[in-house]
Amino acid sequence: MLALAFLTDYGTHDGFVAVCHGVIATTAPDARVIDVSHEVPPYDVRHGAAVLRRVVPYFPPAVYLAVVDPGVGTERRPVVLRAGPSLLVGPDNGLLLPAADALGSVREAYALTNPGWRLRAVGATFHGRDVFAPAAARLAAGAPITDAGAPVPAAELVRLPVPSRSVRAGELDCASTYVDRYGNVQLAATAADLEVIGARQASRLTVSSPSVVATAVVAHTFGDVRPGDLVVYTDSDGQLAVAENTGDAAVRFGIRAGDPVRLTVR
Amino acid sequence: MLALAFLTDYGTHDGFVAVCHGVIATTAPDARVIDVSHEVPPYDVRHGAAVLRRVVPYFPPAVYLAVVDPGVGTERRPVVLRAGPSLLVGPDNGLLLPAADALGSVREAYALTNPGWRLRAVGATFHGRDVFAPAAARLAAGAPITDAGAPVPAAELVRLPVPSRSVRAGELDCASTYVDRYGNVQLAATAADLEVIGARQASRLTVSSPSVVATAVVAHTFGDVRPGDLVVYTDSDGQLAVAENTGDAAVRFGIRAGDPVRLTVR
Amino acid sequence: MLALAFLTDYGTHDGFVAVCHGVIATTAPDARVIDVSHEVPPYDVRHGAAVLRRVVPYFPPAVYLAVVDPGVGTERRPVVLRAGPSLLVGPDNGLLLPAADALGSVREAYALTNPGWRLRAVGATFHGRDVFAPAAARLAAGAPITDAGAPVPAAELVRLPVPSRSVRAGELDCASTYVDRYGNVQLAATAADLEVIGARQASRLTVSSPSVVATAVVAHTFGDVRPGDLVVYTDSDGQLAVAENTGDAAVRFGIRAGDPVRLTVR
Repeated sequence: MLALAFLTDYGTHDGFVAVCHGVIATTAPDARVIDVSHEVPPYDVRHGAAVLRRVVPYFPPAVYLAVVDPGVGTERRPVVLRAGPSLLVGPDNGLLLPAADALGSVREAYALTNPGWRLRAVGATFHGRDVFAPAAARLAAGAPITDAGAPVPAAELVRLPVPSRSVRAGELDCASTYVDRYGNVQLAATAADLEVIGARQASRLTVSSPSVVATAVVAHTFGDVRPGDLVVYTDSDGQLAVAENTGDAAVRFGIRAGDPVRLTVR
Repeated sequence: MLALAFLTDYGTHDGFVAVCHGVIATTAPDARVIDVSHEVPPYDVRHGAAVLRRVVPYFPPAVYLAVVDPGVGTERRPVVLRAGPSLLVGPDNGLLLPAADALGSVREAYALTNPGWRLRAVGATFHGRDVFAPAAARLAAGAPITDAGAPVPAAELVRLPVPSRSVRAGELDCASTYVDRYGNVQLAATAADLEVIGARQASRLTVSSPSVVATAVVAHTFGDVRPGDLVVYTDSDGQLAVAENTGDAAVRFGIRAGDPVRLTVR
Repeated sequence: MLALAFLTDYGTHDGFVAVCHGVIATTAPDARVIDVSHEVPPYDVRHGAAVLRRVVPYFPPAVYLAVVDPGVGTERRPVVLRAGPSLLVGPDNGLLLPAADALGSVREAYALTNPGWRLRAVGATFHGRDVFAPAAARLAAGAPITDAGAPVPAAELVRLPVPSRSVRAGELDCASTYVDRYGNVQLAATAADLEVIGARQASRLTVSSPSVVATAVVAHTFGDVRPGDLVVYTDSDGQLAVAENTGDAAVRFGIRAGDPVRLTVR
């Protein structure tokens, strides 16, 4: 039986996650359920997609149940995707595709149109409970993906826009893509981009957000600089990031995910 | 073996929940434990009762271990109730009864007076660990409810007060009963009350909190109105609720659970 | 198979905890994993140590995987300790030793130097994923601790400083050691210290923080005083603590963990 990995923006304050756990336990009592995160900021599809994409390389084959769904009850399609040895269930709003790509791209996609896979009375506001959790539980229990509903061409699936990045000699402009709990700011760039602008280990860079300019050092980890100093490093996702040793770089630069960042070689 | 569903106001910051998980794993190593929520606001029995009541219709038969217990160490009784195929363990302060009613009403009730069901040394401040978790674990492992202690007549159990509601032609006054993570405001009213005041799908209503007056439309879901507009709808619990599409209605109206709301047909 | 108990300061917002769950599920698919807490404040080794020490007396034999690691990627050693029937895996920065002492002291210690126990590519910033989770999963699956790496003398392990305490007739000065979700303030003192200063049940004490002075009563539990009144009591860890009935003593006294508190018999 596949593990069932579960991500939402529901929080754990209201019991919505637990309702879905109950649905899963009813349909697939033997499934091993692993909570990925339920603290995705409300409606933040991009954040949810980044977290899901982060975890899939480290999981065994699984059914991923992911629900960040500002369009619940409207025309957006509920879907299931097959990618690598895993399945991904959720709304067709861009949430699932970065993870599917990390698993080796979408092999098959189906709209969750089979009424027998839903709870008896489907409401308009809680498709996690009524549509997505029942489908994920059936799949974890071994139901074939071809029973889910009508096939969907992979090219029709909704994709999130690609974050901006522009590289010149000595200067890299890119979007910040993620801010984590420690205030580390992930960028839409990699170590290869640093090479292009002429930076290497121990290079000093000027880091500019829309409101703050400061100096950072290219290094391997936070502890390579003094507390309060800044590093530019390759983070655990393999992306370039800015951090303050034992501090919060996002607060220091006044940055939220999506804001532009410029790195300049000094 | 019954699943064990666990709800508290302990938060996950201090390890109190984990201590109870340890007690459960020691007494009932094979129990499937599902966390319902540990983010009930401290001492908020009404919030805890609402979450527990929300989840029970979707769970398999279970032992519910619920601890929101401002009276810990005082005279309030620790109890176990049997309702439908499930058992509910917690303090006798109103926390358990809405869920028990949703499961089909209380069939039996016992005070947890059996000293053999408690940890060796019972303290005065952590009955989740010392009294409730050991009892719930024994029940999940198959111990008979009749061994829990002295029977309690169901009519003696403490009930929360019923929230206020008053319906006239064209006007509904009621308490808000719950505010969720998205700021959706649940009301002590249902679609039947809307009919009584003469509203139907697409009707326009004036929604009044003590500090704010605004216009909403009766609809099925958030996406039926524009972002920032208000809907009155039947929520996933079957209750009437007020929401702002992709916004926070509770913040907009300055409402907390318990505050009065008036709906007037325009 | 030992249970695997998991504590970090990662939060549940970013998926870092889930990545480790994925690593564990891949290496030890049958392990029973119990989350202790992931809400340790970032980098707060002392808080993490206190939570871990709180839970171990109530757990079955387990592998404890604990990661609060401000020195990640620097020289601090990753270690595994054997204490009582359990194993503790984490950084050698003081996080593990209070729990090990509670389990009956460290019997053996090893540095996690076996490269075969790590993920293929070990980064500099996420040793929870690359070093600690794989080791804990192997141990939970039955690998011998002697395969972990080079032995470390227990006396060489890093210890947190002992919090201050000074007792005179009529007066106790000590550090606050922990503030929980309810604002209860745990002290580096026990009921035995109260006896030394001449206080007993129902004694009135003056409680002084650096900014606030107020009166409390020695009692068994919160409910022994009126809402808003203060108690000094032995908490569920067996330590002396200050609480406000249905209120927040830490806010009232302006106290954070580590701040000094004085108790004076009136």
